[in-house]
Amino acid sequence: MTAWPIPRVSVLTKALPVAFGLLAVVLLSEPDLADRTRLALQTLLVIIWCVYIVQLIATIRTRPAEEGRGAILIVDLLAVAVPLAAFLVASDPRDVSLACGVWILKPLRDSTAFRLVAKVLANEARNLIGVVSIFGIVLIVAAVIAYFVERDAQPNSFGSIPKAMWWAVVTLSTTGYGDAIPQSLAGRVLAGLVMMCGIGVFALWAGILASGFAEEVRRLDFVNKWQLVSAVPLFAQLGAPELAGIVRALRPRHVPAGAVICRKGETGDQMFFIVEGRVGVAAAAPVELGPGAFFGEMALITGEPRTATVTAASAVTLLSLHSLDFQILLSHNPAIAETIRSTAAERGSAKLGS
Amino acid sequence: MTAWPIPRVSVLTKALPVAFGLLAVVLLSEPDLADRTRLALQTLLVIIWCVYIVQLIATIRTRPAEEGRGAILIVDLLAVAVPLAAFLVASDPRDVSLACGVWILKPLRDSTAFRLVAKVLANEARNLIGVVSIFGIVLIVAAVIAYFVERDAQPNSFGSIPKAMWWAVVTLSTTGYGDAIPQSLAGRVLAGLVMMCGIGVFALWAGILASGFAEEVRRLDFVNKWQLVSAVPLFAQLGAPELAGIVRALRPRHVPAGAVICRKGETGDQMFFIVEGRVGVAAAAPVELGPGAFFGEMALITGEPRTATVTAASAVTLLSLHSLDFQILLSHNPAIAETIRSTAAERGSAKLGS
Amino acid sequence: MTAWPIPRVSVLTKALPVAFGLLAVVLLSEPDLADRTRLALQTLLVIIWCVYIVQLIATIRTRPAEEGRGAILIVDLLAVAVPLAAFLVASDPRDVSLACGVWILKPLRDSTAFRLVAKVLANEARNLIGVVSIFGIVLIVAAVIAYFVERDAQPNSFGSIPKAMWWAVVTLSTTGYGDAIPQSLAGRVLAGLVMMCGIGVFALWAGILASGFAEEVRRLDFVNKWQLVSAVPLFAQLGAPELAGIVRALRPRHVPAGAVICRKGETGDQMFFIVEGRVGVAAAAPVELGPGAFFGEMALITGEPRTATVTAASAVTLLSLHSLDFQILLSHNPAIAETIRSTAAERGSAKLGS
Amino acid sequence: MTAWPIPRVSVLTKALPVAFGLLAVVLLSEPDLADRTRLALQTLLVIIWCVYIVQLIATIRTRPAEEGRGAILIVDLLAVAVPLAAFLVASDPRDVSLACGVWILKPLRDSTAFRLVAKVLANEARNLIGVVSIFGIVLIVAAVIAYFVERDAQPNSFGSIPKAMWWAVVTLSTTGYGDAIPQSLAGRVLAGLVMMCGIGVFALWAGILASGFAEEVRRLDFVNKWQLVSAVPLFAQLGAPELAGIVRALRPRHVPAGAVICRKGETGDQMFFIVEGRVGVAAAAPVELGPGAFFGEMALITGEPRTATVTAASAVTLLSLHSLDFQILLSHNPAIAETIRSTAAERGSAKLGS
Repeated sequence: MTAWPIPRVSVLTKALPVAFGLLAVVLLSEPDLADRTRLALQTLLVIIWCVYIVQLIATIRTRPAEEGRGAILIVDLLAVAVPLAAFLVASDPRDVSLACGVWILKPLRDSTAFRLVAKVLANEARNLIGVVSIFGIVLIVAAVIAYFVERDAQPNSFGSIPKAMWWAVVTLSTTGYGDAIPQSLAGRVLAGLVMMCGIGVFALWAGILASGFAEEVRRLDFVNKWQLVSAVPLFAQLGAPELAGIVRALRPRHVPAGAVICRKGETGDQMFFIVEGRVGVAAAAPVELGPGAFFGEMALITGEPRTATVTAASAVTLLSLHSLDFQILLSHNPAIAETIRSTAAERGSAKLGS
Repeated sequence: MTAWPIPRVSVLTKALPVAFGLLAVVLLSEPDLADRTRLALQTLLVIIWCVYIVQLIATIRTRPAEEGRGAILIVDLLAVAVPLAAFLVASDPRDVSLACGVWILKPLRDSTAFRLVAKVLANEARNLIGVVSIFGIVLIVAAVIAYFVERDAQPNSFGSIPKAMWWAVVTLSTTGYGDAIPQSLAGRVLAGLVMMCGIGVFALWAGILASGFAEEVRRLDFVNKWQLVSAVPLFAQLGAPELAGIVRALRPRHVPAGAVICRKGETGDQMFFIVEGRVGVAAAAPVELGPGAFFGEMALITGEPRTATVTAASAVTLLSLHSLDFQILLSHNPAIAETIRSTAAERGSAKLGS
Repeated sequence: MTAWPIPRVSVLTKALPVAFGLLAVVLLSEPDLADRTRLALQTLLVIIWCVYIVQLIATIRTRPAEEGRGAILIVDLLAVAVPLAAFLVASDPRDVSLACGVWILKPLRDSTAFRLVAKVLANEARNLIGVVSIFGIVLIVAAVIAYFVERDAQPNSFGSIPKAMWWAVVTLSTTGYGDAIPQSLAGRVLAGLVMMCGIGVFALWAGILASGFAEEVRRLDFVNKWQLVSAVPLFAQLGAPELAGIVRALRPRHVPAGAVICRKGETGDQMFFIVEGRVGVAAAAPVELGPGAFFGEMALITGEPRTATVTAASAVTLLSLHSLDFQILLSHNPAIAETIRSTAAERGSAKLGS
Repeated sequence: MTAWPIPRVSVLTKALPVAFGLLAVVLLSEPDLADRTRLALQTLLVIIWCVYIVQLIATIRTRPAEEGRGAILIVDLLAVAVPLAAFLVASDPRDVSLACGVWILKPLRDSTAFRLVAKVLANEARNLIGVVSIFGIVLIVAAVIAYFVERDAQPNSFGSIPKAMWWAVVTLSTTGYGDAIPQSLAGRVLAGLVMMCGIGVFALWAGILASGFAEEVRRLDFVNKWQLVSAVPLFAQLGAPELAGIVRALRPRHVPAGAVICRKGETGDQMFFIVEGRVGVAAAAPVELGPGAFFGEMALITGEPRTATVTAASAVTLLSLHSLDFQILLSHNPAIAETIRSTAAERGSAKLGS
């Protein structure tokens, strides 16, 4: 039941080649590499390249005319073609291994995080463009003034507007390399203002991205949890609005077989609904609960510590409900409150609940 | 229907002169420019300046006594007068082209982003002034202490309070150029405290700006979306409070002609209302839907993948409603729920819905 | 009516002495000051010091045994005593003027911003202490590891744990002066982790402060606005919960006499309630509205542009209500909705409303 | 009643040894330490080490087979074993004292802040891993491009991808040590983009951590406050949903004996419920109030200043309710409103309330 899982094929064909490939690319860039190591790493790159040829052929065969194949096919093609092209035409031998850096596109091909980022950028495009415009305007204004103020004193750092723009971008982002520093009073006051503007502009940038992500993650989560909640019979009687409220309050939790879910004597601040799998309750008369059952409600009702330890009998998918949301759920749904309370009462009299 | 759009006059008279003008200003600041290039760029500046004279005359003529003309007129005047003045009086020839940098005001003249920034700054003025005061006080206190602690050890960097203030502002903003660094233990502890204060002060600054923007964007969005929503017949029966809730939940989306809106077989997490334009549903019996119609509701009701691909027949303005908000809408508005469900049922029996 | 206001005494006795005093302190720290300037500035300091003696006496006299006098008295005493003490005992003549820097406490004595900061720090003390502890632990751990890794390679920068802590604090806050930089691979990986931790720790710091401020400002605002709202007769009929909702939605706005509040032909996204003062409506038949009246509601009801320009006849205190909140207010309060709609209808038929 | 509290044993056995131990470790790392000081500090370390041996034995004895002993036992074991091992095997004498740095684990053993951090990291693991992946990908892409662009011009700083990654991480986190700076135009444009990405990535990082903490603190707070609220008789009549709303609005406050809670003549913006302890009301006829009583409600009802000063007679635990939430509470709970109003009326007629 707790056997060591065999690594799935996807790890072998997806994660490993990319990881080793990129590692080899990084190491091969080291100029003082022993010839033997270099040869070994180059051989590794060739092997991975062969794997990717096979993958390309597989992609062409198995997904002949499906929708959405386009992006995947292009990535697979690039993974093969770019290193080949570099091998054929690159004048600098270091560029051949560097070209394999294109393999970083492989994991992005089907990463949900990447798709999430792309979606957020698309949703917030208008706002982000607005912020970039403000950033650009502040940058140009700062550079023009800095050039005007410092050009004669420091021709090396501020002798032209492009040079002053480099200073401005380093200062606006509060990176502050220290390679160009205004010396005049006017230049320093300007620098202070640029830093304050920079914080403001980047705060907007950060705020838009962060809230955009939060929103998108919330929506993704809702869709995933909705399916879990609809698998719990207790909630079947609810209408959509109550269900939507509960979906937001519940947190999914995956517990491996054998793990302890709650421990006798602990303070309990949440109860659990079983979506999948079975749990064992270690009471005087041990009980096993299956999908659709719930436990841990007594600690929330009585405020006393857990009365029994509950362990996952198999891998379990739970939905946990926090004390705060439990009280709200109960008050809005008398029928559910009744079911939970009567179950708790039964268990209490049988010294069984947790 | 998908003909290449002719660039609108506004681009020719607004965006292009500013972009080329500023580019020329930037390039002309380069000291080692070939004489020919320099001459060409200067000619370009003269041409743009002539365009701006024409614009100034047009502004004076077409908007003789209208309200709000003031700001526009001033910008147009400055765009012409500042370079002229620089040409007449500047002792340094580099200043003439630099004076054209004033043209950056031109796009700000009628930019919504800029007006938004101005509005947020006005709304939050009191809070921002408060933060700037705190910033100023921390700055002065830090500079006085740093001067006291480091003045004898490092007279070049901390030999006067203004010098110490330069260090303080660079440290408070966590820019850290590294040109002035306290060496004594007391100075370094102070620097650590200043960094922590700096993060706090700038967090306030960032928080005020970010939430002010979010609020203003939300209000602007609401006004824009309210007009779109009132164009959908289905929502006409709703009272103001329900409408307000829906307006917040709906997201406007502009789709170009020919683009795919949803694809058969995908998981569907939103439905769509058509505000403008027409979409084609690629079912067994292809259907076209026009303004006021909706689609994509079946995937939300049944939880199954999309049953048909929907493509924009013309440029379409849609309002999309996410699964989460769909459930809430339905539960609060039985009449709308009924309409949507019966339409879905009809479509389902006709194998048409998406 | 728009006469230039005579500067109030508080400015003369409060803001000016502090501003000039601190400016003199800052300038006097400059070592290469002409003797005449130095003498003038020192005289200024003496004069301000005399003013503060008078203030101290006034404080002792006018507030003999009142509550809360303690803090004010202490500040007034310090403002007089610290410079005096410095004059009597300081070995370094520069310290005498520096001691006047204590005058920065004067404006803090009765600043609301400062009291707000103090309240937020008190409210969030527990959380802030938690974050500072985490910060301290990360700092020590990072410094110990960096010392262990880099002590032999760079004894100057990492030769003891206190030195390594200086590097750690500069890196944790992402200031990055660049005076101490790890050179070994282990040290650089550590630096990367420290930067990531730093961002996290400071994000918590920033988040706690920013949300604490937002909360406190919201509460302060509520108390202020509650008094304004209760001055509007239209809202007198409302119960506390509806009133609380409206108070949150309304924004106070102070308009000087003669300023334009809304302009004919503009898009209207808010309506206004008059708390104090009078406004003039520039319609065919000019009208003046006084305290308790409202205007600008027609643009929200019809969605059309403003039909008249409204100007402040005297200094006016308004409460503005945004379109979004207007719809919600109307839907929850049928009586108010009726009053506003009938007023709008009357005005519409009289071509008067804005 | 206000006697100086005797330091509790936990401070003597927990906080002090760690604080002194770590201080000694920090100081011992200083190379130029006088021999006497060094000896003293080393003796201190040995003493603390002995204390920790005693603690280890105590832990083994008192908690023989309890749940959750594991982590505590491991920490206690490490605190003893690591310095011992270092003493026995370390080739460098400096490592012996350094090994005592492991004692920093001691306070973490039972710190709630640490447990909170661990819980947040566990809750947000999926999101944090996503952000770290994005961070890693941006890092690698930036390093490969920077290496390609700058490797020939600056072999020392960008001569291999690992070197370029150091630059990339310093730039992504906007730390900007300034030891590696791109010189080419392409490199500088890349640097600007990396800074913008960096701000975005770290904003996500910060946003996830900050909101995760806020959520967890909110839940912890709710559980703590729930117990306090249920001790106030006035709220006993409420159902769970109203109670949940009140719990969120109330703020716990611990006041030492003798402190003034509210002062006659101040503006009142909150009322108080007594959970534990007694307060004295300094009216014409002084009154003492005990657990379950409330005061300060008159200022909220009448809007007038406090009519009496209230002082803590013993150490008091209060729940404070802000004006805003007071109005909402009253409007939703007519029974409570009635009780509070009638009490206020009684007190008002007796000139007693505050």
